[in-house]
Amino acid sequence: MSPAQNAMLADLRAVLPPPAIVTDRALIAPWEVDWRRRFAGTAPALLAPATTAEVQAIVRAAARHRVPLVAQGGNSSMVGGATPPADGGVLLLSLRRLDAVRRIDAEAGLAMVEAGVVLQRLHEAALDRGVRFPLTLGARGNATVGGLVSTNAGGTQVLRFGTMRGLTLGVEAVLADGSVHDGLQALPKDNRGYDLDQLLIGAEGTLGIVTAATLRLVPAAGSRTVAWAGVADPAAGLALLRRFQRATDAVESFEIIPAGTLAAALAHLPGARPPLAGAHAWHLLIEATAPTGAEPPTATIEQVLAVAIDDGLVADATIAASEAQAEAFWALRHALSDAERARGPAAQHDIAVPVAAMPRFMEEAAAACEARFPGTRASGFGHLGDGNIHFHVRAPAGADPARWYAEQAPAISGFVHDLVTAAGGTISAEHGIGQMKAGELARLLPPGDLAAMRAIKHALDPLGLFNPGKLLAPVSTAA
Amino acid sequence: MSPAQNAMLADLRAVLPPPAIVTDRALIAPWEVDWRRRFAGTAPALLAPATTAEVQAIVRAAARHRVPLVAQGGNSSMVGGATPPADGGVLLLSLRRLDAVRRIDAEAGLAMVEAGVVLQRLHEAALDRGVRFPLTLGARGNATVGGLVSTNAGGTQVLRFGTMRGLTLGVEAVLADGSVHDGLQALPKDNRGYDLDQLLIGAEGTLGIVTAATLRLVPAAGSRTVAWAGVADPAAGLALLRRFQRATDAVESFEIIPAGTLAAALAHLPGARPPLAGAHAWHLLIEATAPTGAEPPTATIEQVLAVAIDDGLVADATIAASEAQAEAFWALRHALSDAERARGPAAQHDIAVPVAAMPRFMEEAAAACEARFPGTRASGFGHLGDGNIHFHVRAPAGADPARWYAEQAPAISGFVHDLVTAAGGTISAEHGIGQMKAGELARLLPPGDLAAMRAIKHALDPLGLFNPGKLLAPVSTAA
Repeated sequence: MSPAQNAMLADLRAVLPPPAIVTDRALIAPWEVDWRRRFAGTAPALLAPATTAEVQAIVRAAARHRVPLVAQGGNSSMVGGATPPADGGVLLLSLRRLDAVRRIDAEAGLAMVEAGVVLQRLHEAALDRGVRFPLTLGARGNATVGGLVSTNAGGTQVLRFGTMRGLTLGVEAVLADGSVHDGLQALPKDNRGYDLDQLLIGAEGTLGIVTAATLRLVPAAGSRTVAWAGVADPAAGLALLRRFQRATDAVESFEIIPAGTLAAALAHLPGARPPLAGAHAWHLLIEATAPTGAEPPTATIEQVLAVAIDDGLVADATIAASEAQAEAFWALRHALSDAERARGPAAQHDIAVPVAAMPRFMEEAAAACEARFPGTRASGFGHLGDGNIHFHVRAPAGADPARWYAEQAPAISGFVHDLVTAAGGTISAEHGIGQMKAGELARLLPPGDLAAMRAIKHALDPLGLFNPGKLLAPVSTAA
Repeated sequence: MSPAQNAMLADLRAVLPPPAIVTDRALIAPWEVDWRRRFAGTAPALLAPATTAEVQAIVRAAARHRVPLVAQGGNSSMVGGATPPADGGVLLLSLRRLDAVRRIDAEAGLAMVEAGVVLQRLHEAALDRGVRFPLTLGARGNATVGGLVSTNAGGTQVLRFGTMRGLTLGVEAVLADGSVHDGLQALPKDNRGYDLDQLLIGAEGTLGIVTAATLRLVPAAGSRTVAWAGVADPAAGLALLRRFQRATDAVESFEIIPAGTLAAALAHLPGARPPLAGAHAWHLLIEATAPTGAEPPTATIEQVLAVAIDDGLVADATIAASEAQAEAFWALRHALSDAERARGPAAQHDIAVPVAAMPRFMEEAAAACEARFPGTRASGFGHLGDGNIHFHVRAPAGADPARWYAEQAPAISGFVHDLVTAAGGTISAEHGIGQMKAGELARLLPPGDLAAMRAIKHALDPLGLFNPGKLLAPVSTAA
């Protein structure tokens, strides 16, 4: 532990209760490595405040002693966004004890919750009051509200209600000077200058420490209709989505899966059965919901699908006849990542292109990758409704995984990122930048935007206290 | 004209076509005064670029010669946000010639339009394609997209579709270094660092020059249902709104008007008739729409109102039987401001409080004002659904208008702003800060937020090129 860290902890011991300062190596170690074990670092202490005032005390002490902090929620980052650096220079700042559900106003559709509240608990707390927090994702048992806000998390239900940015009405955060920005009132109309809430959403803990948020709740889903359809190409999928959107705003998920990826999932998942009898090049998984007490959306979904089959837009389709069948459809979707991983080493990409460009991109990018890197197999599945593609490029058969990841994968990812940038898309749709993509962001973001982001970072965190090395790579001093 | 301005114009004459540089006093004069003639300034030249590249050339020349720019759209600011200062030190930058509707994608619900497009033209362009841009306001014949984005404009239809922030999916803007930030792709999922689009929305032209935006379009309204209801107090109005929101998402406007203000409008508007027969302390104007081809929302509105009357929540209500009657209801609402003005001098306030706090605030703030400033009469009307109140405090009978505005009104506004701040509200709900409220913002915003905004301003506009003196008042050097 550095002298500065020691002095900072001495200061904090005078003002914080003992559980807020953890120096036991065994208790810290699990939080020094990301959950996929790709990024590891070290932190000589973990600070675990239970109130916003305690976070303020920590930030002030950090500023006084020039000790940077890495904020951490559920440690479920996909890009090493919450893992400390290797040099031991930072302290971990865990927000998990800041976990009060301060208020749920079901009538107004608002939840005011602290940063450490785990997503699953928020789901349950909302359902207990007859309402719903609509965003969900695989890590719902670990991901915290603070992390979800700070990474502008997405998931499978973004089509209707948006990402966290659309669901976060206000943010409470501790700024680098130790002051509290309090946006929790979440006024629908408020034009008092720059929107600090929006700036903190998706900032990955580099501009301030999110301590609480006011989130939007929606009516609980009383029923859902889950359908599966086979189409000839992604363009047909997009055309079908547009038909649904004209007919209803009940569609929450619209996922697209190529035949090969589905076959892998069917092989991977014990007892799984194909939803449709025939062979189709592309598959669509569609979910629509209706609030409690309202008519289920089944009739509308059925009607749109029937017309689309008559028109030849859709080759075949089926609607889950039971909740068990609906779960079985979703189980296939959720098995895709594992099934893809089981097929061998692959470079995975969390990318998005403009929705209208997605059909062409999915086909052309795969072909371009396979041509440029002989022996690889490229495929994408994803959220057709928001242009988000999980794009995987698998190693040639027989490749040594460790060597391939080290020697080939970076060039492949660079190539994919070039393609997506040329298509007007993004190298990070959902997962953020963290440490994994900071270099690629610096390479591919327009220089003016990058300079603006660096200027904002320096303006709001002049001492570099918050999550150093994440999102914005250090400026290279080399020519 | 200063030597620096002269040198800048000489540079620009070499690269811009003649219509882009206006020095004719007669052509400049109308743009040196705001439309309500409250703020006047002077600018020795007006620059009128027709392309984003021309804006870049202007910003680069401004930076080279250290000549600040005041961006202007329709000059319909309510807070002197687009009026040049009196010292002649700035040049006006009119975006009105940058007026292409670049693209309307009715299918995807997107419009890509340049900053100078007037709101009314956007409305028409969307309707021509069978879709709708839902935000509207009184100045729709003058207000431009660039100004609407830069002030995060609101209006009467915010309840369902939000302010400009909710309708702006991406922004194109020229930054202080002359680079273009291009957010027009408007990716639904994009986590590449800080959200510059969101930072530019509502920044009042102080961080960059918005040159175009991608806006959200919604299905055209095929029918509307307009209702009028009388209630005993604002709390009953809010309870009724919540019932509507549980029953349908079709409600777009929910306006509340006290009896006295309505009486003034009835007296002011020739031939106007009261919508309801009896006397009611508070009145509600409600509008719901349905897309073309869908069932009109009338039955739902009728049913909710009928139950509310049975319950005693609503005293009386009526639904406009024709489009003419609907227009007559709205004509009353639109006459409120003029009618209030006709009652004599008044300090007007564009404020908002949390929606749940609005019923109590409307009654208590009026009483507090009248007690504190004897002889005044205070009343508020506004958008109950989003907590936005137009709060007017009228001068005592017989007061000399000029003297009262100069000597009494500022203290009254300070008092109202203190009340609204104590209630967790905002001193600017819709109109922004401009020059009119910059002092009050500096007085009432939490110091940490104010410091953060100043730091952001300095970071993105280090030379102070963009709209000097607006939004953030100059830092006082006095103790």
